[in-house]
Amino acid sequence: MHKATTIFPHPPSIITSAAVGGKKEHEGPYGDRFDKINDDPYFTAETFEQGESQLQKQAVRIALEKADLKEDDIDVLIGGDLLDQCVGTTYGLRDYHLPFIGIYSACSTMSEGLLLASMLTAGGFAGRAMAVSSSHFCTAERQYRMPLNYGGQRPPTSQWTATAGGALAVSAEGGPPYVRGATIGRIVDMGVTDANNMGAAMAPAAYSTIRDFFEDTKLSPADFDHIVTGDLGKVGSRLLWQLGDNEGLDLRSTHLDCGLMIYDSDKQDVHAGGSGCGCAASMLCGYFIPELRQGRLKNILFAATGALLSPTVSQQGESIPSVSHLVWLSSDKE
Amino acid sequence: MHKATTIFPHPPSIITSAAVGGKKEHEGPYGDRFDKINDDPYFTAETFEQGESQLQKQAVRIALEKADLKEDDIDVLIGGDLLDQCVGTTYGLRDYHLPFIGIYSACSTMSEGLLLASMLTAGGFAGRAMAVSSSHFCTAERQYRMPLNYGGQRPPTSQWTATAGGALAVSAEGGPPYVRGATIGRIVDMGVTDANNMGAAMAPAAYSTIRDFFEDTKLSPADFDHIVTGDLGKVGSRLLWQLGDNEGLDLRSTHLDCGLMIYDSDKQDVHAGGSGCGCAASMLCGYFIPELRQGRLKNILFAATGALLSPTVSQQGESIPSVSHLVWLSSDKE
Repeated sequence: MHKATTIFPHPPSIITSAAVGGKKEHEGPYGDRFDKINDDPYFTAETFEQGESQLQKQAVRIALEKADLKEDDIDVLIGGDLLDQCVGTTYGLRDYHLPFIGIYSACSTMSEGLLLASMLTAGGFAGRAMAVSSSHFCTAERQYRMPLNYGGQRPPTSQWTATAGGALAVSAEGGPPYVRGATIGRIVDMGVTDANNMGAAMAPAAYSTIRDFFEDTKLSPADFDHIVTGDLGKVGSRLLWQLGDNEGLDLRSTHLDCGLMIYDSDKQDVHAGGSGCGCAASMLCGYFIPELRQGRLKNILFAATGALLSPTVSQQGESIPSVSHLVWLSSDKE
Repeated sequence: MHKATTIFPHPPSIITSAAVGGKKEHEGPYGDRFDKINDDPYFTAETFEQGESQLQKQAVRIALEKADLKEDDIDVLIGGDLLDQCVGTTYGLRDYHLPFIGIYSACSTMSEGLLLASMLTAGGFAGRAMAVSSSHFCTAERQYRMPLNYGGQRPPTSQWTATAGGALAVSAEGGPPYVRGATIGRIVDMGVTDANNMGAAMAPAAYSTIRDFFEDTKLSPADFDHIVTGDLGKVGSRLLWQLGDNEGLDLRSTHLDCGLMIYDSDKQDVHAGGSGCGCAASMLCGYFIPELRQGRLKNILFAATGALLSPTVSQQGESIPSVSHLVWLSSDKE
């Protein structure tokens, strides 16, 4: 048996978090949870990619400010995004000149970053570690699908990449919420080849990790207020519930999906829901962490979900491997 | 002051490593150090990208076999590569179905992976952690520069992306070599915009990390057999020495660069040297680790170097940020 799950004997703290977004995210049901809204998709820069970098730069700066921390108070930045060679992150964070760990986990980046930040601080390798991620509708569309100007039709299973970002800092010492545990996800590929149906590709990965966590810990869904996935959307969420049903694991009652939270799917014309690294990152940093800090939520599992395809290999006919990393967040230390 | 450098009180062991390569790497000065050579750039697959995935799959399998380990003996795989969305890694490793941490650090991937594998095992979060990386001349050329069929001329400062891969496993218990310490690199961008001169872009990042290590540890270059960089090549290596000279740090005497080792630059028509994640990974796994294990080398610093650009942002006129992560490897535990 693999040691996929870690339970922290001394759970590290999430000492600050910040969420930033764009106009459409502001108009969604959690619009007032963003610390900063950017109405201009260029973020006053010249290209969408430069705009996405601003999301990360802003999220880190605001997260620092909210905890009255200086840049030098952070020992390591851990970040990634969806863009080729993760340039949203590297160009967004280069001005901070802090020790930097680059990660790639598609839309599961924020849970991988939080998981690593927790291990590095709990292991004594960093005093404070910051995790950050972002996505941008305009950079993702032209990279994965078509230039926006092409005006391509989006099929009903497609999801809308959020223009959003999130950053959080973890420390060995501090108040709630606490990172009680984490499960490192495995790559799961069930043969889905439709790059316009990410939810279906990612649901089995989310289920694999959630099941690993429950098997490893002997806990059950009833121990949690919510089991939160990243961006399964309408299609992937139903599949996740069914996968649970098949094995007698009730996920329906407690499940929330950030992709179904960030937009009003019916009114905002996003088809199957939201997606992108920034979707789960902003809902975690803007909503779930503050709710846990205030004690309005007690325990959640946060399992962001990532589809590990590239346009190149998709066009070569490959199926879509996916991964989902999970963290257990709690308002209590034990 | 940042805690960029970790010195492990109980240094973890590198218990196995494997290097795989292609035809040109076999013809280089260290050709006999590869555990497997693939003469076919397609690796009997249909596309170059599928070929690159085979490099990672092979490296992991051979590293396991050499230590008589089964797949299940590994708790976590940590991997990345240069391809958009790191598909060399995700498609190469999906069949292992092991807990997987995706990383992106361009050609510094192997030192970031080794650094994280060391921290996860030393921190007790994994029993055995495996780091893996690869690059492939044919996938990199068409992604970063031109389709091979175009037959573009390569300028004298350009480097040849190695078709190679490496994998290693780290454990809290075991024999030499030991991972004594690690320094997490900072992003450094000195304004170089020439995507055909990666050595110049990366040298300042390598210097920043090497200087951080010496400042943090109070050790000096004389304490090491070699200071090894990843793929600075001829141009970047000279710049690194000059940066050291400017501050009275003699790097010339002990410096080796994997990009200058893997090929015979004069005879093999590679201009400024080799490059790619697989260059540093294969020289580390095929040459340095075995030399340290045998005690023929006592102490080295391994600082692979990564240029964090993407073709998209390069074409937008952006300069090239770089990063270099460093690990201190030793034949002695203390």
